[in-house]
Order: sequence, then structure tokens, then C-alpha cells
Amino acid sequence: MQTVGIIGLGLLGGALARRLLKTGLRVAGYDLSADRRAQFTSNGGIALENSRAVANAAEALLLCLPDSNAVEEVVLEFKSSLAGKLVSDTTTGDPDRTAHLGSDLCRHETRYNDATVLGSSREAEVGNVIVMVGGKAEHVQDASSMIDRFAKQWFHMGPAGSGARTKLVVNLVLGLNRAVLAEGLTFAQVSELDPEKVLNVLKAGAAYSRVMDSKGAKMVQREFAPEARLSQHRKDVRLILEQGQRHGGHLPLSRLHEQLLAEAENQGLGDLDNSAIIEIFRRK
Amino acid sequence: MQTVGIIGLGLLGGALARRLLKTGLRVAGYDLSADRRAQFTSNGGIALENSRAVANAAEALLLCLPDSNAVEEVVLEFKSSLAGKLVSDTTTGDPDRTAHLGSDLCRHETRYNDATVLGSSREAEVGNVIVMVGGKAEHVQDASSMIDRFAKQWFHMGPAGSGARTKLVVNLVLGLNRAVLAEGLTFAQVSELDPEKVLNVLKAGAAYSRVMDSKGAKMVQREFAPEARLSQHRKDVRLILEQGQRHGGHLPLSRLHEQLLAEAENQGLGDLDNSAIIEIFRRK
Repeated sequence: MQTVGIIGLGLLGGALARRLLKTGLRVAGYDLSADRRAQFTSNGGIALENSRAVANAAEALLLCLPDSNAVEEVVLEFKSSLAGKLVSDTTTGDPDRTAHLGSDLCRHETRYNDATVLGSSREAEVGNVIVMVGGKAEHVQDASSMIDRFAKQWFHMGPAGSGARTKLVVNLVLGLNRAVLAEGLTFAQVSELDPEKVLNVLKAGAAYSRVMDSKGAKMVQREFAPEARLSQHRKDVRLILEQGQRHGGHLPLSRLHEQLLAEAENQGLGDLDNSAIIEIFRRK
Repeated sequence: MQTVGIIGLGLLGGALARRLLKTGLRVAGYDLSADRRAQFTSNGGIALENSRAVANAAEALLLCLPDSNAVEEVVLEFKSSLAGKLVSDTTTGDPDRTAHLGSDLCRHETRYNDATVLGSSREAEVGNVIVMVGGKAEHVQDASSMIDRFAKQWFHMGPAGSGARTKLVVNLVLGLNRAVLAEGLTFAQVSELDPEKVLNVLKAGAAYSRVMDSKGAKMVQREFAPEARLSQHRKDVRLILEQGQRHGGHLPLSRLHEQLLAEAENQGLGDLDNSAIIEIFRRK
């Protein structure tokens, strides 16, 4: 039986581990947190003493880390152990750093691809996420049988870094669609319409967006228990703006979005669900 | 056989006339344009010499006019002839003026409702639009059998003017979703991703919005043959901002949207399809 290694057993890493175990793979893993390692073991995983041990134990590795800093730190630790290995990086990082890491590892004979995930950890656990992959065609091909185990659909977007770049585009559209819905529902309310009825009209016609299903009721009912935090999305938007600046993109809507999210954080909404952006439109 | 009257035989009025004729009604109509009247006659309608004649000939009337000015002009002409009649106004007008007209006509015993239509004239012709109705419950009930003939779904939103108000909310969300898609696809392009591939990723996941189906390919291929003109949407956005100001709404995204649309018009894109908004994001 093939062994897959997972470095980082947080929300996404833990879910992917459970998914891969369910599909019959042997999974070795490591996380800084002893609690997470214990959880992983209780799910049937093999917790090892550090990242290097995981890299040595497995031919195919998944990195599920919080950001580019963490990825670079882990990889620098044992770059040489990665020669010949297949590394799929699901971290939502800075795409330029992801691309750079990819070409650096490639020189060390590592088959690297960035495989960013679209969907919640709950969806990852049932094999229902979308994966955006960047890397050399042959390396992506090598990774595809593993990705097939947790993705309902995946796309090869281009060279290393392209997965992370696509994730930023998706986040740009997703977050702004949310903000647009928030402005629309607020406009409905000041116009003395029933926001719930209006939401039904919006869903029925050309103005429909999928955020209406995921966030519409939360906005109408002002129920902001976090599924994903507003502050996290502000970080995404900053990364989008940085990339835009670096590559010459004109992103006026995202610039305004960042201001609105900053305002929301200043009002203490950062730890609420990202649908709480609607409170900013309501404030007047 | 019941006779329905239609005043205004433009794109929408003409399509509704054809639809009602197809469902077996007798339809009397008037339009300022002789060409449109001739077209209407050739489709089986009964063209009359003026609006008053239409009002006299039919118990139930549809107004399909370009804006609130036209509606008020027509109605003032023969307000007394409308006593006891059922008037459904499909015009996308200023909601406050629509509400005012509704209560004025109500005092003259006219059963008025505003029944704004969401969808193209092509969809109206096959009975596939969504209708947002404002008016007294009993008047809306009276109009429902006619609305059922051309709507796949309709919603009673509240008192007179509520249909027009809801239409503005829908237009706010629809137009901004379009602008968001435009910014996202441009960001994809400067990030050296294939916009067509990215469009497929966007459609597959949580960032999906229905404008991706209607406008995505047009934006990617820069094919801007007008289905609905950019300048027309700018007028909608101005109406949204006016209403927002009057009712105390905070609409920062729509304010920015108006600036972007103004910029687009200044660059000569006004007569193109509203998907041409993407050119504004591309300009840098």
C-alpha cells in the first residue's frame, strides 16, 4: 500500500488526511500541535516526530500550511530529502513565492505542484472540493491519482504558482460577490422591501450568485457564527492587491473592498463570519 | 374573449403582445411609432389610433413605456377613462414616482399595480420572465391571471412601487456582479492565466454567478454586440444612487460602479453591450 505524507494537520490538512485514509491509503503526518497529531493518530494516521521524517517515509507529500512563510520554513529544513519526491502544496500562499519555490525545488529534482483547494474542509473530507493545480504537465499527471481522491473536479492552470494565482482570482470574485449581495440586501431594506423576499427574487433570476445560497440567510438574519472569518478574507484581498500592483492590474473594486473590510475590522467584526460585511452597509 | 390593451409596443411591449396573442387573448395596442403599430397588426393585434382608445377598448391594460415621464404623460391624458380598469405597469421607472402614481390612480378607482419584468424580450415572448409586482393584494390578485400568461414566476413585493424598487435591487446586484467578473477576468489575465480556463473554474465553484453564463464568453472574446447597452445600465445605476440618497442607503460599491460606467461612456463604450465594462479594467 502506498504511503502519502501530510505536513500540516490543521483544518484542511486534517480533513485531507481523513479523506485519504478513507480511500485506503496509508498516511503519515506531522503537525506542530500535539493535539492535532493525537487526533490524526486516532483517525488511523501514523504521526511522526517531525516533517523530515514524513518526507522520508513517503513518496508523495501534501503540504497543508497556513502561508508561504510556513511552506518555505518547512521546505528549507529538508530540501535535499525532497529529491525525486512528488510534492503537492495545498497552501493558499503568495503566488510569486509559490512559483519561485517551484522552480527552486525543480532544480533539486523535486516534482512540485501547487494544488490549491476551493471548498470547505468538510467538503474536502467527502471528496467534494475543486482543486486548481499549477506545475509541469508531467508532475501534475503524477499527482492526479492522489488529487482524484479528494477533488470532485480539478483544473491544471499552468506552471507552478498558477494554482495559487487562480485561487486569488476566485477569492476576488467570491468576496466581492458577497459584498455586492450585502449592498443589495441593504438597499432592499432601506427601500422598505422584505430582504428575505428580495433574496428569493435574486435567486430566481439573472442576478443569481452562489453566495446567495451560502451567505444570504446569514445576512438577512444577522447570524454571523464564523464559517470563515472576515479577517481571513481581508488578508486574501491584501494579497490580491499586492499581486495586482506587481503585475500591473487595475483593481478598483478590490481596493474599495479592502477599505470596507478594514472598516469592518475596526468595528470589531473581524472574528465574525465574512458575511458580517453587511453591517458596514447598514451603518448609515 | 377578453381584450387586453397594451400601450407601448417597443421591445418589451411588442414581445408581451405576441405572447398574449399566442395564449389566445385579443390584444388592442398603441405606439407612437407607425412601424411598430404595423408590426403589431401583422402579428394579429388590433392597433388603435391613440392610448385613450386602447384604454376604452380594454378592461385590463399593460403599460410598457420607456420611463416614468412617459408613463405620467400617458396616464394624465386620460386618467378619468381609467376608472375601474386594471392597469399593470411594466415600465422600469423611478419607484417613488411609481408609488405616487399608484396612490393617485387608486383615488380614481383604478386598480393599479407595477409589474416590472426581469428577463429579455425574447424570454417574455416565450413566457419565461420573472415579474416583480407592487400593489394592493386584491389588485395584484386581479392581475395574476394575465401575469401568469407571460411569467414563469412572479412575486408580490408590497404596495405600489415595490415592483420597481425590487427591480432596482436586482439591477444593482446584476450590474455589480458583471463588474466583479470583469475585474476578476482582468486580474486573471495580468496574472498570466488563461481567462477562459479561469472562467470554467469560477463557474464550477462557490464564486459562480449567473452573469458568467450570459457575459463570460463575451468578456473573454471581447465580443460586445449589444444585448443591452452599457449606457442603459448607467441610467439604472444613477436611479439606484438617487433612491439610495433619498432613502438613506449607503451604497459605496454602486457609487464606484457609476464612476466606472462614466469612464466607459467617456471612452465611447456606451453603445456596446454592458459586458464592455471589462475594457475599463484592462486599460492599465
